Amino acid sequence: MAAVLAYGHASSVPGSLSVAARKQCLAGTSASLRAGALTMARRLLVVGGDAGGMGAAAQARRRDPRLEIVALERGNWTSYSACGIPYLVSGEVAELEDLVVRTPQQFRDTLRIDVRMRHEAMAIDLDAGRVEVRDHGHGRTIRLPFDELHLATGARPRRPDLPGIDEPFVHGVQTLDDAAHLLAHAEASACRDIVVVGGGYIGLEMAEAFAVRGAKVTVVEGGPQVLGTLDRDMAEPVVHAMRRAGIEVLLETEVVAFSGARPGREAGGGGRTSGGTVEMAATALRADLVLLGLGVVPNAELAGDAGIELGPKGAIAVDPRQHTSAGGVWSAGDCCASYHLVSRRPVHVALGTVANRQARVAGINIGGGYATFPGVLGTAVTKVCSTEVARTGLTEIEADRAGLGYVCATIESTTAAGYLREASPITVKVLAERGTGRLLGGQIVGGRGAAKRIDVLATALTATMTVHQLVDLDLSYAPPVSPLWDPVVIAARRAATEVDRAC
Amino acid sequence: MAAVLAYGHASSVPGSLSVAARKQCLAGTSASLRAGALTMARRLLVVGGDAGGMGAAAQARRRDPRLEIVALERGNWTSYSACGIPYLVSGEVAELEDLVVRTPQQFRDTLRIDVRMRHEAMAIDLDAGRVEVRDHGHGRTIRLPFDELHLATGARPRRPDLPGIDEPFVHGVQTLDDAAHLLAHAEASACRDIVVVGGGYIGLEMAEAFAVRGAKVTVVEGGPQVLGTLDRDMAEPVVHAMRRAGIEVLLETEVVAFSGARPGREAGGGGRTSGGTVEMAATALRADLVLLGLGVVPNAELAGDAGIELGPKGAIAVDPRQHTSAGGVWSAGDCCASYHLVSRRPVHVALGTVANRQARVAGINIGGGYATFPGVLGTAVTKVCSTEVARTGLTEIEADRAGLGYVCATIESTTAAGYLREASPITVKVLAERGTGRLLGGQIVGGRGAAKRIDVLATALTATMTVHQLVDLDLSYAPPVSPLWDPVVIAARRAATEVDRAC
Repeated sequence: MAAVLAYGHASSVPGSLSVAARKQCLAGTSASLRAGALTMARRLLVVGGDAGGMGAAAQARRRDPRLEIVALERGNWTSYSACGIPYLVSGEVAELEDLVVRTPQQFRDTLRIDVRMRHEAMAIDLDAGRVEVRDHGHGRTIRLPFDELHLATGARPRRPDLPGIDEPFVHGVQTLDDAAHLLAHAEASACRDIVVVGGGYIGLEMAEAFAVRGAKVTVVEGGPQVLGTLDRDMAEPVVHAMRRAGIEVLLETEVVAFSGARPGREAGGGGRTSGGTVEMAATALRADLVLLGLGVVPNAELAGDAGIELGPKGAIAVDPRQHTSAGGVWSAGDCCASYHLVSRRPVHVALGTVANRQARVAGINIGGGYATFPGVLGTAVTKVCSTEVARTGLTEIEADRAGLGYVCATIESTTAAGYLREASPITVKVLAERGTGRLLGGQIVGGRGAAKRIDVLATALTATMTVHQLVDLDLSYAPPVSPLWDPVVIAARRAATEVDRAC
Repeated sequence: MAAVLAYGHASSVPGSLSVAARKQCLAGTSASLRAGALTMARRLLVVGGDAGGMGAAAQARRRDPRLEIVALERGNWTSYSACGIPYLVSGEVAELEDLVVRTPQQFRDTLRIDVRMRHEAMAIDLDAGRVEVRDHGHGRTIRLPFDELHLATGARPRRPDLPGIDEPFVHGVQTLDDAAHLLAHAEASACRDIVVVGGGYIGLEMAEAFAVRGAKVTVVEGGPQVLGTLDRDMAEPVVHAMRRAGIEVLLETEVVAFSGARPGREAGGGGRTSGGTVEMAATALRADLVLLGLGVVPNAELAGDAGIELGPKGAIAVDPRQHTSAGGVWSAGDCCASYHLVSRRPVHVALGTVANRQARVAGINIGGGYATFPGVLGTAVTKVCSTEVARTGLTEIEADRAGLGYVCATIESTTAAGYLREASPITVKVLAERGTGRLLGGQIVGGRGAAKRIDVLATALTATMTVHQLVDLDLSYAPPVSPLWDPVVIAARRAATEVDRAC
């Protein structure tokens, strides 16, 4: 019995007591806990069956074989690569199942995790240590108690409040269930005309995917540039690449409404079974399918309604161990906030890499270990129409917002020695803090082999290197993979000169 | 006059006085110097016309417009990419001239550098501040005085002391002149059978280049592995790739002699105008051409004979500003030594990247500025038969030699998301110090996109990161360029586990 208690204590976090332990403190006695410890295992309840949830569940299981783990997923899939959805649409990936890393059954069999599919958490009662759950499969509502609760409710595509936004031909793409709906729609109708609303990563990737399928694709972006997480000068080459690939891109064009096609109204006819019109101020576009690429909103209402503290953009606030403001409640993934290593402020960054890393940290802590999540750089990369794009740290706008003075340097080079056929153009932009020369961020656009160079800048940012230190990096060189001075170093050297000049 | 003197002083380095300044101190008077200062510009004499020399000359010129710069090159080319020679042989690069970054005339016209071709420095008189120079073009010997001397005499291919090593069919490849000879030989004879002696970077690259030309190529390596700067387990996949490409690789096979073909002795006859036999203990190989790939030896005899201090492998010893043991004498490139950032020992690393970086530092200092060369990691990369290979920091043998205790982790992953066609296998090996977890080195072998990931490890080594810190890096992910956890991070995570276990 003593061993069981010691074990229970070891898994508690200072300042973040589990509900059971908290109750024990409040009651001033441990009798009820002791009585329970003999008969019941500690229960972790996980809400959300993708990376942020199941990654934590798997880690917790590895650390604590005695933990009872119940995981709720409101959809039909666990642990999948949402980032792979565009390649499913383009046909490079054959089946939805190819994107699944681990099925519910595999979680049950190999990790003894009680995964309950089509179960949706509706409300959290923190005082009672209980979650109200809607079992969609059986049309019933149940209550599940927990000792530790892990919230990984993810995010959902932003849906602007426009007339017709709920028309069935308007799709967001976030989950594998979304992808299944989309593919069903695309296969049922001709999908010759596609409109993507918003020029974020997923929007551009989906635009390309449908273009590869042979559709006529138009991207409608309200702002002056695509890829708003890049500086405008770095986003421009991406638009050129898309236009060269036959994708129409309309900038500074606001969508004002969507209207579904009604029987008899449609001009083209043919095999089209659905679709409608995307209306803008001055024009309108016929669309068999509309995709929303306007970014995401954290699914944090469940936490917020329970009184758990929310942070930037309404994402769940967490401490470095991924613990929320409520004792015994943890969070990871697209639903929760992060700390930005360069701006030194809380941010909401919804990326698979971050979700997985946060989940690992949460799981280690839930399982009784100790781990902290140091923070994010907002490192991101994509490939659009053969052009690779990458960013890390702060852009000019972000540095301004963070109150940091900076200099910029942008250079053009090649991905390989200029005399070789495989050499592609590459543009590297580097931001450095005025005075100190501290690297603040970088952006890269170019041909094959360009984008992954961003990782050098991400590593240097983590080490808070100056651009002067970057100049001295002993990076690899051979004609097929790099010019003699790596483009990242050339950019850093230019930035160092600017820093010295601005002093 | 005062201004001229002040300027002269500003360019002197504490502890490394120029010859003129040193004389002034010895003589106890500055009368002769003052007299000369009015009539003569300070003269920099550069020995060696490739990267280590001309890079420094160009930097010095930018810093000091009044410097007189004379550069001596014993061959026929300045500032070229020796690393591009294999691509010249394979036909991917059309002309020798394509590898030239700057011609002698360009140096004269744009940087006012008096480049003297086919001029070879024969001896240095440090006391007199004078170099004896053989002008091969005019068959005469001249003496050139200097105020600052910069030695960039490079390295030469190692030639083992074997019978027949001087036969004309046995070629080393280091300079563009070597390449010109080699191509002339290859065009004059059939070059159907090529033997490469030694399995270093240049040897393997040349082997592939001749295979691309349609030759039957055999690599003969005395040791148990190719690429001796990698651990054996990481070099093995390279041999497999070469064999798949039709290149024969003989390991643990010592060459004992070369013998030239004499008229009438040759069996095949045909268009062959030269060639001979490579003899090993148990067998012999017919070769139209033999290439030496046994590494290089620094050309440091000129410096050594003048009494300048030499370091590891007989390379010229320099301080962090690239200054030698002799006042006013500098050095950069393949002829001189470096400091290793991980082993913290002097080393000789003959690489184009190092030569260019050292030259930049030397040139800034010669020009009156201040710069130091922090050191090397021995980062290197190559592509052999579609397999990319890279290394940085210490291998197991090197860590042993440096007296460092370590753990290793080797992992297999893919260069892109496993569900995409462009995903190639990648193997990453990471060494970390026991106890501290400090990253000590890394090696990567894999398909396209694998090798440049070494730069993350090189950056982390420079920042003396631990493998635990590497696990937290916010590296970029998108399915076409990476699996969700970058292979470098997976390897670091495995190594971190090993470190914790070994504590």
